[in-house]
Amino acid sequence: MTMQVRIFEVGPRDGLQNEPRHLSVDTRLALIGKLAATGLRHIEGGAFVSPRWVPQMADSEALFQRLPEDDGVNYSALVPNGQGLDAALRAGCREVAVFAAASEAFSRNNINCSIDESFERFTPVLQAAKAAGVRVRGYVSCVLGCPFSGAVAPDAVAAVARRLHALGCYEISLGDTIGAGRPDETARLIEHCARELPVEALAGHFHDTWGMAIANVHAALSQGVRTFDSSVAGLGGCPYSPGASGNVATEDVLYLLHGMGFETGVDLDAVARVGTWISAELGIANRSRAGRALAARSAEHR
Amino acid sequence: MTMQVRIFEVGPRDGLQNEPRHLSVDTRLALIGKLAATGLRHIEGGAFVSPRWVPQMADSEALFQRLPEDDGVNYSALVPNGQGLDAALRAGCREVAVFAAASEAFSRNNINCSIDESFERFTPVLQAAKAAGVRVRGYVSCVLGCPFSGAVAPDAVAAVARRLHALGCYEISLGDTIGAGRPDETARLIEHCARELPVEALAGHFHDTWGMAIANVHAALSQGVRTFDSSVAGLGGCPYSPGASGNVATEDVLYLLHGMGFETGVDLDAVARVGTWISAELGIANRSRAGRALAARSAEHR
Repeated sequence: MTMQVRIFEVGPRDGLQNEPRHLSVDTRLALIGKLAATGLRHIEGGAFVSPRWVPQMADSEALFQRLPEDDGVNYSALVPNGQGLDAALRAGCREVAVFAAASEAFSRNNINCSIDESFERFTPVLQAAKAAGVRVRGYVSCVLGCPFSGAVAPDAVAAVARRLHALGCYEISLGDTIGAGRPDETARLIEHCARELPVEALAGHFHDTWGMAIANVHAALSQGVRTFDSSVAGLGGCPYSPGASGNVATEDVLYLLHGMGFETGVDLDAVARVGTWISAELGIANRSRAGRALAARSAEHR
Repeated sequence: MTMQVRIFEVGPRDGLQNEPRHLSVDTRLALIGKLAATGLRHIEGGAFVSPRWVPQMADSEALFQRLPEDDGVNYSALVPNGQGLDAALRAGCREVAVFAAASEAFSRNNINCSIDESFERFTPVLQAAKAAGVRVRGYVSCVLGCPFSGAVAPDAVAAVARRLHALGCYEISLGDTIGAGRPDETARLIEHCARELPVEALAGHFHDTWGMAIANVHAALSQGVRTFDSSVAGLGGCPYSPGASGNVATEDVLYLLHGMGFETGVDLDAVARVGTWISAELGIANRSRAGRALAARSAEHR
């Protein structure tokens, strides 16, 4: 099993999208630039969604147009539909992400259609992306629980993941949207999904709402997962638990991985400095525990 | 392997001792009473140490004198020496705890003597406690790293744990004082210690300084450990990392355990309410992520 782990930094999208304070395109670009300088090679930069619904992601087109083209970083954008894809293509995106839910109740509540209907909707998006030579990543939400219907069966998740993969998504990110999963459940989930598609095509996307995220990363690692989504400073939150913790912090994931001998190519200290900076920009407490421990250490040495 | 797990609540001692705001004996007694009402049956209530060094633990004698006697709760007190034991006995304590370090550098820096000398010092304390019919718990600090000398060998920890057990400590709490351990290291540590003494005599005491505590609890569980020290609302901190996270939160541990089918006899929702209350008393943010998620849920239902 490889000792290389890919970190997919989602702070500038999944993170910022769930923070109350809205940042300018300039600040968001500065964040992305600082993150790229730490060695991160996969950064979700924004989302092509209506600014009426997600004001934090406004002007993603202008943002993507200003991103560097040949710096070796894969800048990804979330697109909910064909309109979003068109905007992403105009802005020069080389990778987009689509999302499906593993729970019928969540699909109906979140995007107002069944899981099957959601596949009908984004099949043409996937085809158009493919035609344009753009890679597509797939998100599955509610993989370890649904805010509306509770428990979600691992087989239901595996089925949705398999469909996304069969439609051409190169990687399927399994999202514990409400951060409710525990490590034994995570291990079981990966086991089920790995029966349906190669474990190399799976990514873990954990939220720390109930404090389980790092334990879940560790459980997924044990099952062979080698790609993890994370967010600098633990940016983000949970729309279903206002005030709760957000995405697992990139710093905490790096601390775990590097100590276990995994290589990521990312400089933990540098990410922690970005985390301190962006937390100040947002006027929030840094939610990364490793980030706070490193900040304490550097304050001591000052 | 039993599905019963014992929670040893250390918030009123290890937690409060590392919080900057000092609480009155009345408030500390209220905290202990509220914790006992959640079903917790093991609560570390205070420490018999000099108020000059640890003002947060001042008047522990008065506090212990006012604790209920026959409520089925085991109230424990930390005693560093014979003087502390005498005060604990005067106050009617039925259980005390002593501590040794697994790292020579920490022992010298913290209590100004070698590990061997520390054993010479508290052997008479243990004998006097035994003569008085008082149970003794042993803490080993720095089991997964030392702030002064770095890595600590699992065998060094196992040797100190074995000595404490041989001297009559009924239980040995393995403390990751600087919260630096990762789950693979925790599993290896328990494996080593379980060769030297029964795993039933081991407790896990994890700090969340680097965000690893719940993953470490999970790793220790997998190795058969069935007792964990934790702190309501994640009270506490790390003297070696000012501003960092403290003890693993009781709420987060309960969320993990109950979801895995373990029984604790403790009411998670009730502990979370105590966590909200004591965080407000201390003027700090609640550090338990499960506690914040539950607070969000009950705010919604209000």
